[in-house]
Amino acid sequence: MSARAAIVVTGTEVLSGRVRDRNGPWLADRLRELGVDLAYVTIVGDRPDDMETALRFMAEQGIDLVLTSGGLGPTADDLTAEVVARFQARPMVLDEALAGRIEEIVRPLLTRWPNLDPEAIRVGTRKQATVPEGAIVLEPVGTAPGLVVPPGVMASLSTHGPTVVVLPGPPRELQPMWGAAVRTDALREAIADATSYEQRTMRLFGIPESEIAQTLREAEGQGIELGKLEVTTCLKRGEIEVVTRYELDTAGVYEAFARVVAERHEDTLFSTDGSTVDEQVARMLLKRQWAIAVAESCTGGELAARLTGPAGASQYVAGGVVVYANEAKVALAGVDPRLIEEHGAVSEQVARALAEGVRARMGTDVGVGVTGVAGPGGGTEAKPVGLVWLSVAGPEGAVIVRSVNLPGSRADVRDRATTVALHLIRRLLLGEADS
Amino acid sequence: MSARAAIVVTGTEVLSGRVRDRNGPWLADRLRELGVDLAYVTIVGDRPDDMETALRFMAEQGIDLVLTSGGLGPTADDLTAEVVARFQARPMVLDEALAGRIEEIVRPLLTRWPNLDPEAIRVGTRKQATVPEGAIVLEPVGTAPGLVVPPGVMASLSTHGPTVVVLPGPPRELQPMWGAAVRTDALREAIADATSYEQRTMRLFGIPESEIAQTLREAEGQGIELGKLEVTTCLKRGEIEVVTRYELDTAGVYEAFARVVAERHEDTLFSTDGSTVDEQVARMLLKRQWAIAVAESCTGGELAARLTGPAGASQYVAGGVVVYANEAKVALAGVDPRLIEEHGAVSEQVARALAEGVRARMGTDVGVGVTGVAGPGGGTEAKPVGLVWLSVAGPEGAVIVRSVNLPGSRADVRDRATTVALHLIRRLLLGEADS
Repeated sequence: MSARAAIVVTGTEVLSGRVRDRNGPWLADRLRELGVDLAYVTIVGDRPDDMETALRFMAEQGIDLVLTSGGLGPTADDLTAEVVARFQARPMVLDEALAGRIEEIVRPLLTRWPNLDPEAIRVGTRKQATVPEGAIVLEPVGTAPGLVVPPGVMASLSTHGPTVVVLPGPPRELQPMWGAAVRTDALREAIADATSYEQRTMRLFGIPESEIAQTLREAEGQGIELGKLEVTTCLKRGEIEVVTRYELDTAGVYEAFARVVAERHEDTLFSTDGSTVDEQVARMLLKRQWAIAVAESCTGGELAARLTGPAGASQYVAGGVVVYANEAKVALAGVDPRLIEEHGAVSEQVARALAEGVRARMGTDVGVGVTGVAGPGGGTEAKPVGLVWLSVAGPEGAVIVRSVNLPGSRADVRDRATTVALHLIRRLLLGEADS
Repeated sequence: MSARAAIVVTGTEVLSGRVRDRNGPWLADRLRELGVDLAYVTIVGDRPDDMETALRFMAEQGIDLVLTSGGLGPTADDLTAEVVARFQARPMVLDEALAGRIEEIVRPLLTRWPNLDPEAIRVGTRKQATVPEGAIVLEPVGTAPGLVVPPGVMASLSTHGPTVVVLPGPPRELQPMWGAAVRTDALREAIADATSYEQRTMRLFGIPESEIAQTLREAEGQGIELGKLEVTTCLKRGEIEVVTRYELDTAGVYEAFARVVAERHEDTLFSTDGSTVDEQVARMLLKRQWAIAVAESCTGGELAARLTGPAGASQYVAGGVVVYANEAKVALAGVDPRLIEEHGAVSEQVARALAEGVRARMGTDVGVGVTGVAGPGGGTEAKPVGLVWLSVAGPEGAVIVRSVNLPGSRADVRDRATTVALHLIRRLLLGEADS
C-alpha cells in the first residue's frame, strides 16, 4: 500500500467560487513526483469546525499526509494554524524570533504605503508568528510562515494521525516553500511508503470521447491487461487527453496500449509525450526560426495571448492585430473592404485576407486569420453563433482554411476557436497545407 | 439551522489538476441563491471507493443535499451513477426509453464522423441509460442524463441520508440541467430548511490586505457587531474583495460596517455593488459612446481579450495591436523609432507613444499603451522583471501614465498589468486624468 495524501484548501472565497484554487492542481503534481497517492482534495470555508471535521475525516481514512493551503494571513478570519494545532493536540505558542523576522519583511510596506497603521501591522505580524508547539517553521516567502506539524496524540484513533503541512494561499508564496517542506524529516517519515509511478499522456484532436472508450475495449479484447494501468480520458478544450499512470514494472502493458491508440487514431493523435499543441507550435517555430503574426476578430486577443504566454515567445511572435471593427480589419490587416461587403466579415474570403494581410504587413513567415460569431448575439441562420472561419498562411503560398461550428457560450467559442487555430498552425508547420 | 449542502466533484483529471473544476464555483452560486449553506467541496478521482467514502462522510455530517458532477460519460471509468446507487442502497436498472432518447441524440455524430463504430456508440448509450431505481431522470443536454436520487435506507445512520443530485461534468451540460433539478420535489424536500441570506461585495484596489484587517478591528472597536456578519476578505488579481453574507434582519449591521470601510478607504474603494472594474469600464464606455483601442506589448493580447470578453464588446472595442517586436511598435502603433532607441521599449515615452499612436491610428476616443518586462528573462538592474509602464490617452489631451513593479511569475505579471490597465482606463473615464 502506497503512502496516501489529501489536500485541504481553505477559504470561503475559494469555497464560494469567487477565487479559483490554483494550489490543489500544483500540489497534486508535486505529490505525484514524490510517488504519493492523492485521494481527496477538499475545499472548506473559513469556519474552524468544518476544517477540523475535514481533517478528522482524512485521519479516519488512514491518510498519511495532509497538505493545507490558505488561512495564514494577518486577518482574523485566517484560522488554519489554530485549527491544525487543535487537531494535532498541540498548544499555540508565539515564536518571538519568527515575529521579528516577519516584521523585517513587512517594514518596506510602510514606505510603499505611507498611510499604513503600524499597529495594524504589528498585530498581524504577531498573529502570523503564533504557531503550534513542536511544528517545524517554513520561512515566509511573503509574510506568512508555513508549518510542518507532526502528528499529535489523538484519543479517537488507535494509530497516530497524519502529518499536516500548512502552506500559505498565494501560489507564489506556496510554491517556493514546498522545497523546504519536502526536506523536513517529518514529511519524509510520513511518506516513507511511497511507491514510484510512471505517468504518460497522449492527446488527440478531432474525435469524440466515445471513440476512445471503444479503443479501450478493443485493447482489452486483444488481451492487453488494462486493469494494471490507471487510464483516465477526458475532453478538455476540444481535445481528448488520455493519461495513464502505472507502476514501473507494468511499462510493457502501457507500451502495448499506446500502440493500439496510435494505430486506431493515426490521424488525430497529435501528442504521445504529453506535449501540448501550444508547446509543439512554439518548438516548431523556434526550430525553423519562423516568425508569426495573427489577425483575430472573434477571439479578441486570446490567440495572441496564448501564443505569447510561454517564456521566450518574443523570439517567434512578432505581434498581432485585434480587428473587431470592420474598419480595423481594413486599416490594420489590409483586408479589401469589398470582400467584407460581398461576403461578410465572417467568411472564408475575409479569413484568408486577414491571414495573408497580417503576414504581409508584419513581414512574418506565418500569418493567421480568425473571424467568427462568438455570440451570444449576432448570429443569423446562415452564420449562426459558433461559426468561425480560420486561415493560416505560410511561405510560398502555403495556406490552410477551415470553418468550424463550435458549441457553448461566448467564452467557450472564443477558447475553442483559439485551440483550433493552434492546430491549424501546427498542421501548416508540419507541411500539411491545403495548397 | 439552515439546510446544508456539499459538492462532490469526480474525475481523476480534476483531482490531478489536469482539468480545472468549473462546476464547484457555479453550483456554489446556485446554492447561495437557494439559501442553502455550502459546507464542503470535495474532489475525488475515478475510484468508486474514494467517492463512496466521501459521500458517507457528507452523510455523517448531516448534509441534506449532495451535488455530484462528472463521471457520467460513456467510458468505463465513469462510475458516478453506480456509486451513488450503492450509497443510496438502490439497484441499477436499464431505462430502455431513456436509452432510446440518448440514441436519438448521438445519431447525428455518426454523420459528422463517418468512421465511428456504431457498436461503440450503442454500448456507451446503454451504459448512460442505466440508472439507480427510483431516481428522477433529468433529460440529457449532451448525451448524459442527470439524476436526482432520493435517500435510501442506510443501516449506519439513525436518520435518513442526503438527497444526491447527479450532474454531468461538462459545464454546458450541467448548467442547463440545473433548473430541472431544482424543480423536482425530491430536491425541494431536501432543502426545506433553507434560510435567506443577503450577500454584498466591496472591492478595493491599491492597498495591502492587512489594512482591511485593521478596518475590521476598528469597526468592532466602534461597537459594530461583526460577529453577526460572515465577512471574508481576499486578495485577488491585485484587488481586495470583501464579501459579506448575513441574514436579512442584520442588514443594519452591514450598512454600518460598509460606512466604516467607505470612510477609511475612500481613495481605494472602487466598488460597493460587487461590480468588477471590467464591468465598470464597459458600462462607462457604453454610456459615453466612446470607442477604445489598445497597443500592448508585455501583456501580449490579454488586455484586448479581457476588454472583448463581455457580450456586446464590439460596441466599444474597435480593436488593438499586439506589438511584441519593436518593428511592430513602429509599424502598427506609429511609435517613433528614435523613442525606442533613446529610452528603450519599456519606458514612459514608449507607453505614451503607444497609447497616443493606437488612438490616432484607430480613430478612437481612448487609446491604451502597455509595455513592460514580463520575464522570466529580459530583466536588467534598471528595468527588472515586473516593471511595466502603462498609459491611457483620452480626448482633449487627457492622459494618465504610471509605472508599476509587479511581483510573481510571467503569468502573474501579465495578469496584474492587465488589471492595472483597466483601473487606469476607469480613472480616465471618471475624469481623473493627470493632465
